[in-house]
Amino acid sequence: MITAASNSRIKRLIQLNQKAKARRTEDVFVVEGQKMFLEAPADRIKEVYVSESFPERCTCREKLEKTGYEVVADSLFGKISDTCTPQGILCVVEQFHYNMKELLQKENPLLLVLENIQDPGNLGTLLRTAEGAGVDGVIMSRDTVDIYNPKVIRSTMGSIYRMPFLYTEHLTDAIGELKRAGVNVCAAHLKGTRMYTQADYRRGSAFLIGNEGNGLREETAQTADTYIKIPMEGSVESLNAAVAGAILMYEASRQRRMKDERRESE
Amino acid sequence: MITAASNSRIKRLIQLNQKAKARRTEDVFVVEGQKMFLEAPADRIKEVYVSESFPERCTCREKLEKTGYEVVADSLFGKISDTCTPQGILCVVEQFHYNMKELLQKENPLLLVLENIQDPGNLGTLLRTAEGAGVDGVIMSRDTVDIYNPKVIRSTMGSIYRMPFLYTEHLTDAIGELKRAGVNVCAAHLKGTRMYTQADYRRGSAFLIGNEGNGLREETAQTADTYIKIPMEGSVESLNAAVAGAILMYEASRQRRMKDERRESE
Repeated sequence: MITAASNSRIKRLIQLNQKAKARRTEDVFVVEGQKMFLEAPADRIKEVYVSESFPERCTCREKLEKTGYEVVADSLFGKISDTCTPQGILCVVEQFHYNMKELLQKENPLLLVLENIQDPGNLGTLLRTAEGAGVDGVIMSRDTVDIYNPKVIRSTMGSIYRMPFLYTEHLTDAIGELKRAGVNVCAAHLKGTRMYTQADYRRGSAFLIGNEGNGLREETAQTADTYIKIPMEGSVESLNAAVAGAILMYEASRQRRMKDERRESE
Repeated sequence: MITAASNSRIKRLIQLNQKAKARRTEDVFVVEGQKMFLEAPADRIKEVYVSESFPERCTCREKLEKTGYEVVADSLFGKISDTCTPQGILCVVEQFHYNMKELLQKENPLLLVLENIQDPGNLGTLLRTAEGAGVDGVIMSRDTVDIYNPKVIRSTMGSIYRMPFLYTEHLTDAIGELKRAGVNVCAAHLKGTRMYTQADYRRGSAFLIGNEGNGLREETAQTADTYIKIPMEGSVESLNAAVAGAILMYEASRQRRMKDERRESE
């Protein structure tokens, strides 16, 4: 059992929680809680840490015995946890490495392209919603918040394990690649004259979502094939980025479901 | 100019930021930032506090001169601000008091009913999205987070000034009142067999949204006239409360827009 705050592993876990660079160097990230442990792909789990009292009250004993684990003194567990009320289990998991080919492998893919999203809760919620709406992959500009940030991880509610994603140094180049693959690139934009419900997302489509405060950069917005608008009543000037993304993704999901329903009844 | 942290007004402003009870006792709330000051209804602004350097760099001078203001030493402003990077202006605003009649005054009202929403960001985002989608009012159970919490206020982006809302001690009674007024009460629920896109929200409609972790209480869910489901792919078990609300409200908005478009072309 680890009992000293000065233990080098404790120091390292704190670094992994706090610093994207430390995570990148080791090619790992940290997840917390029983649900996140249970959903983690077994072959990616590198280390498991539990508080003294955790093993006897958990319902994941079987997986815990299989993966093995290290016990951390209850008094110390709060230090390595990123939450106020730690559940008592934390795992170090290997990072994912997807490439563009994997994101584009389905016919008529549905994609999300995020530019400079800064709020960890927004990014996590976008991932969770994307999985729910049947999105095939998420592409992010390099200056988007780190997807392995513990707050992002938490708000993905497990979608981090299942949603293919990649960061790109040059977002406009990546969008160019999508276009060459026949994907229709759509941007919710002030230029948009078409209601978002009136564009067709049944063929390969990608939604561009910009920064919370500033929206899309002009050079990114210019790459779009289709400009759409989400109507807003009252004095609302914009929607929360995760909300705007959700509305667009679920409209695509609605249209695609209708296509399927028609197919089934044909 | 106020320069002492021990000043009773400084202490009171800190209380107003931190405690729902202090806000309730004085029947006020605190807003921060230039945009929130500019959008605040003039007749509700009770006090304005600015940092020393604010008046010379602001673009709201005219309103500032009209309302009057008190200067707070720059070094002290951080204490009364709830944000990490204060903009330098903070106002004390009178609380709103709406009643059910006001929420129901439009023909075919669109309403949001929130039960025990706990995350301030979710509540603020729901209000902002509700205004954007053309919702007429928001009803909340007493155990929902305080709408005048500074984090809620911030994420409403000004919708707090414009969206009618009320708290109710007995949510099921309030829902009963909606039903007697002819409003169709819809709940996204595991019982839901109907796609949310297949119910009709063009007549008076209310969406029930439950707590982030636990969903709707059974007794609340039982009041619904219509059970709907938001389809989820992958392993997603639920959506973020603000996202689920947004998808439903914008589906209602879409249907209502179609009705309007038909009317116009008739």
